Amino acid sequence: VEHYAAAIRAIRENSDLLVHPTLGQNTVKGHEERIRHIVELSKDSKLRPDIVGIDTGSANIDVYDASKKAFRTGDKVYVNAHETLMLFCRRLRECGVKPSLVAWTGPFLRSAGALMDMGLADEPGYALLVHCEGGILGGNPGTPDGLKAFLDQMPKSRHMEWTVCCKEGNLFTVAMMAIALGGHVAIGIGDYDYPELGTPSNAQLVREIVHMARLVGREVATPAETRRILGLCQPPN
Amino acid sequence: VEHYAAAIRAIRENSDLLVHPTLGQNTVKGHEERIRHIVELSKDSKLRPDIVGIDTGSANIDVYDASKKAFRTGDKVYVNAHETLMLFCRRLRECGVKPSLVAWTGPFLRSAGALMDMGLADEPGYALLVHCEGGILGGNPGTPDGLKAFLDQMPKSRHMEWTVCCKEGNLFTVAMMAIALGGHVAIGIGDYDYPELGTPSNAQLVREIVHMARLVGREVATPAETRRILGLCQPPN
Repeated sequence: VEHYAAAIRAIRENSDLLVHPTLGQNTVKGHEERIRHIVELSKDSKLRPDIVGIDTGSANIDVYDASKKAFRTGDKVYVNAHETLMLFCRRLRECGVKPSLVAWTGPFLRSAGALMDMGLADEPGYALLVHCEGGILGGNPGTPDGLKAFLDQMPKSRHMEWTVCCKEGNLFTVAMMAIALGGHVAIGIGDYDYPELGTPSNAQLVREIVHMARLVGREVATPAETRRILGLCQPPN
Repeated sequence: VEHYAAAIRAIRENSDLLVHPTLGQNTVKGHEERIRHIVELSKDSKLRPDIVGIDTGSANIDVYDASKKAFRTGDKVYVNAHETLMLFCRRLRECGVKPSLVAWTGPFLRSAGALMDMGLADEPGYALLVHCEGGILGGNPGTPDGLKAFLDQMPKSRHMEWTVCCKEGNLFTVAMMAIALGGHVAIGIGDYDYPELGTPSNAQLVREIVHMARLVGREVATPAETRRILGLCQPPN
């Protein structure tokens, strides 16, 4: 908690950026434990995160090495039972933190729709569509078909905002589709380092996205505008 | 094992139908235990099953009741780790039994492709595409988009035969697509009882599929033809 608190303090002293930390994934045991740092941070409105992602389903996440025809591991199943998701949604609501509904496959979005239907996640729903490359087989691939497999299963008759990322692969094909279709883009060297583009910096990657968005008349949202679009809590102070 | 053996003996004394039993799912503990009955049966070529399904991924399988806005259960995650799948493929190969690669989402087929790539499942690959309705949210829905989300992630450059079913929902929309696109159809009242069609018998359901297949010039395969299409072992005796 203290590490998170220090980082959040530093961010907020220097900017109005939204703070979007992770939950504990496989490294943390116990459902309450996975979200405890968020609950603790939120007791101080200055440290309360803005958005927290919850993965709305279960999937196999071993990496397959096609050149060696072998999985690097064989036992990695990322388990997120529905009762865990319901608990996370309740805790985030108590904290005043917006859930990002993170999907690896279309059916994750069916479960996200059920969470919204149960009143555990508010409209607009905020979905992160995680495309998987680099041998991660448990999610949709980073292709137009992969994106379509998500969008076809988006909760119907709900106001959804959605953004795309790609683990271990080049996001630009999917990002162009998302920009064209009204989605948002989460790009960064934490997901993939783009050696084929000369290992650009995060700033360079974001600049490319901004450039393309403006070509189709979509201006980039400020943090304050993003708060309004997603219905987030007001900023600290 | 004795129950399986008695059923298989009775089937084979009266027909040349293919025998396609299940593995132990959530009810059986331990990976070897889930497949032990198949290994035991296969020691006698008269009792060896023809096809056995293995679910090539993990998913949440709780049922959501939309009318009550609640899940009936909250903790049901169907876990099939890659190392389990590799074990099942090896055992089935030792037994001379064809694996049916059962997919609930597109990424299950990415894992199925890796199993084929590793030489653990032979061409033609045989995929069962499980569409999920009736509140089962962990698989693709029983819609044309749901089918497309499977087909787009079918292993590329592999000879695949594929068949469709729908848990707890009307399969006919997807079945028509499958017939048109060159797929196969697995329909039956074990998946859904079709009250909207007057709770027909299995024979009536199958007759409808046969009728549609012939309308587009696709004759129905006999068991012997199916053995050739899927590359199964020769029949007992």
